[in-house]
Amino acid sequence: MTQLRERLAELTDLRHAGQLLGWDQQTMMPAGGAASRAEVQATIERISHRLFVEAETGRLLEAAAAELNGAEPDSDDARLVAVVRRRWEKARRVPTELAAEIARAASLGHEAWVGARANSDFSAFAPHLARNVELAHRYTECLPEFERPYDALLDDYEPGVTSEEVTRIFAELRDELVPLIARVSAAEPVDDSYLHESFPVARQRELVDRVLRRMGFARDHWRLDEAAHPFATSFGCDDVRLTTRWDEHYFPGALYGAMHECGHGLYEAGIARSLQRTPLGHAESLGLHESQSRMWENLVGRGRAFARVLAPLVAELTGRPIEPDALFRAVNRVQPSFIRVEADEATYGLHIVLRFELEQELVEGRLRVEELPEAWNARFAEYLGLEVTDDALGVLQDVHWAAGLIGYFPTYALGNLIAGQLWRRVHADVPDLDEQIAAGELSGLREWLREHVHRHGAKFRMPELVQRVTGGPVQVEPFVSYLKDKLGAVYGLDLHDLRGDTQTRNPQGAESD
Amino acid sequence: MTQLRERLAELTDLRHAGQLLGWDQQTMMPAGGAASRAEVQATIERISHRLFVEAETGRLLEAAAAELNGAEPDSDDARLVAVVRRRWEKARRVPTELAAEIARAASLGHEAWVGARANSDFSAFAPHLARNVELAHRYTECLPEFERPYDALLDDYEPGVTSEEVTRIFAELRDELVPLIARVSAAEPVDDSYLHESFPVARQRELVDRVLRRMGFARDHWRLDEAAHPFATSFGCDDVRLTTRWDEHYFPGALYGAMHECGHGLYEAGIARSLQRTPLGHAESLGLHESQSRMWENLVGRGRAFARVLAPLVAELTGRPIEPDALFRAVNRVQPSFIRVEADEATYGLHIVLRFELEQELVEGRLRVEELPEAWNARFAEYLGLEVTDDALGVLQDVHWAAGLIGYFPTYALGNLIAGQLWRRVHADVPDLDEQIAAGELSGLREWLREHVHRHGAKFRMPELVQRVTGGPVQVEPFVSYLKDKLGAVYGLDLHDLRGDTQTRNPQGAESD
Repeated sequence: MTQLRERLAELTDLRHAGQLLGWDQQTMMPAGGAASRAEVQATIERISHRLFVEAETGRLLEAAAAELNGAEPDSDDARLVAVVRRRWEKARRVPTELAAEIARAASLGHEAWVGARANSDFSAFAPHLARNVELAHRYTECLPEFERPYDALLDDYEPGVTSEEVTRIFAELRDELVPLIARVSAAEPVDDSYLHESFPVARQRELVDRVLRRMGFARDHWRLDEAAHPFATSFGCDDVRLTTRWDEHYFPGALYGAMHECGHGLYEAGIARSLQRTPLGHAESLGLHESQSRMWENLVGRGRAFARVLAPLVAELTGRPIEPDALFRAVNRVQPSFIRVEADEATYGLHIVLRFELEQELVEGRLRVEELPEAWNARFAEYLGLEVTDDALGVLQDVHWAAGLIGYFPTYALGNLIAGQLWRRVHADVPDLDEQIAAGELSGLREWLREHVHRHGAKFRMPELVQRVTGGPVQVEPFVSYLKDKLGAVYGLDLHDLRGDTQTRNPQGAESD
Repeated sequence: MTQLRERLAELTDLRHAGQLLGWDQQTMMPAGGAASRAEVQATIERISHRLFVEAETGRLLEAAAAELNGAEPDSDDARLVAVVRRRWEKARRVPTELAAEIARAASLGHEAWVGARANSDFSAFAPHLARNVELAHRYTECLPEFERPYDALLDDYEPGVTSEEVTRIFAELRDELVPLIARVSAAEPVDDSYLHESFPVARQRELVDRVLRRMGFARDHWRLDEAAHPFATSFGCDDVRLTTRWDEHYFPGALYGAMHECGHGLYEAGIARSLQRTPLGHAESLGLHESQSRMWENLVGRGRAFARVLAPLVAELTGRPIEPDALFRAVNRVQPSFIRVEADEATYGLHIVLRFELEQELVEGRLRVEELPEAWNARFAEYLGLEVTDDALGVLQDVHWAAGLIGYFPTYALGNLIAGQLWRRVHADVPDLDEQIAAGELSGLREWLREHVHRHGAKFRMPELVQRVTGGPVQVEPFVSYLKDKLGAVYGLDLHDLRGDTQTRNPQGAESD
């Protein structure tokens, strides 16, 4: 066990070096450093992959498993061996040079994307995307045991989940969202003009700092920087890096972006110290990760209770008072829009369904890269009723495909659903949670999440953790029910009578235990 | 050759990852990240050292040497093999675990130093320094072929130079400086009150940005950040990172610190593209490196010609006009002071002699760490006539020993001397150089330096490069002669009649060709 842990500690260190290289590239690096950075990323991946897939790792795993014979199956050691064994079996099927090339192409692709998005120039980005798709395809060819090539990719971000399950869940979600959006769109529009005034970034930063501190951000363990596409990363629980992006003309963008990333950060910061410097010391399931970020961004940040905290802070920024309920309504306006990360919670799911469909078609050769903008725009018009006339507001808006993250998108929508399930569970466990939040006391929620989700790190795969915490599998109903409550309050409607209400269809929801 | 170059490229990538980890630690990392960062640094060093010292590297070197048989000895390939062979022979004598431990202790020591300096608390720093000294001692024990243990360390920073040579050169330098300082101290003091007003950092930053841009700083390849102890680093010629530190009450600190670091940056940015991603792609001799930084900081930045450029820029900061000659005099005031990096050019050398002596005594066991503050203060009083009452202004002021950089200090004073020699040489080659500088045109100097120094990277050791460019070895006379000219102008004195003037003693100086 000791030798295995030493090797895994070294691999974790390499992972942190690679993450720092990525963080720096997205926040600090001058553009000129891109070519050299891609080589360094490739080398770190090559060395790391080589060390991991060595037969010696397998021998150490065997020895550790023998040593553990009879140990508590949920112990750190037993789970460590199980998780590492699974990853090792997958990684060793992939040639080291392919792994390194994927890292190199991701780094170069990211840099090309920054320029292409700034100039709304898909052609500058297309060759990099084509390269990433080709490499993803070669990667999936190494893993023919997955039922579909796309599933080999999805498994990297959501281990143990298949595209078939996601498709089924998303169909159910879409059946809920479409009539919901239609009903709300027919109602009197919410006034959100208050949100669209201009404020200097330095002033917005004060607001964001105050909100993040309430969430748990502490200057001696966290940073907040700017990035073209906001993200969070951590080098263990004591060094958490958040990013957001600032828009002088729309302060909720930076605020909710930062709350979202801080949700990710709290997850990483909450992982047990006993798991640090091991592969269990970082969360594995991105669905769980997004459940945390989306919960803090939306269920807390755009919630009615937190509006009581936010309204006076926002009034300090704007210099004009605002009633908590007016703020609550404004930040929950439902309106189809172009940018996923700024979408309201009802239309958000459709942005994900669109990406999930397109990336499967790309990877499985049913859609060529050069056809992508047209396919994007056609489907966008179909799902969201808007005509995309600028690729920067369309296919170029997200960094993921540029950075080789194909198979990642579905985890956002899964995260929304899991957040809905956890939200119901925590309210059952902490009956006065809304009062706590309204009083600006967020530690009750944070500590509940730490206890039930964060501290486990990568010990449990998402379906298992969701089962442990909520008593059932991933479900659509709690999220949709939450959303109908919220939008009902925002628009003054009763939305629970809508066709397809899963509360009616699934009366035995596992959350009722 | 190809295989050797591939391995060296990978090692260079690892070096860049390590440098980024260090840069981040000093500029960005929250304090909480320190323990984890030290592990990552140790792992990168362990992997890098292991890969480098493998017998396979020796075989590749043998094969490359055979392949090169008869090649031009100054070719990139021939020099690469020679330099790498020398480093390999040294590195393989050192156990990998010791190399990793040195990296870990340096990272932890840096962090402890930041806190100890802030609190002027030597006791918080002493155990880390003791650890670094112990590791340095173990390191030197691996290398008994050096005449003195200290020489094994010095050789890492100034390959091919011994402490005996440095001692001889420093004795000569001290014989020059002491009467020079005495004479100038007896003269009417220069008025530098203009420099001691307070200005916001953001305004100082504008001044610094304008000066750096003239030097060659370009936003798409360079950055400037803040650090507790200013430094420069680069990840190849296209990504150069400078730091400085801001003092609201003394703007020359940030200005000259930034010019100093930009001098380092120009060196790294000027290394030939053909040497990138090889061990020759970074300068090796720190004496040469400091000759560049000290030249830009002092011979240019505090020079009479550049004062014509600087005076109007400074006047914009202060809101009060200043005559170039008044600025020239103010920034060259000679006065013994506590902080090395802010010392004038005459007393600077004494700061170095003191450190050079103390670090030899530490490494060779003649001085214990707990005796260091007293020894520092006693020698400081002897050399500079000042009583140190605050360790933050004394033994805690520099980061070097904290970060394991023992044997580094003498290179600063060597750098001053080499700068003096290069300065004489470039004036012979470019007769209107002062007019160019006075007109704000710095590219003539920069391109001369690039041609004669920068582009070679680590191809030549310092004594060889100095010989090639100036026709002789490192000499004291050109620097002292430059200093006498300058301080003579500042103080209205003729200083060339002073006892010990090397212009008289060395009439055949190599610079006279």
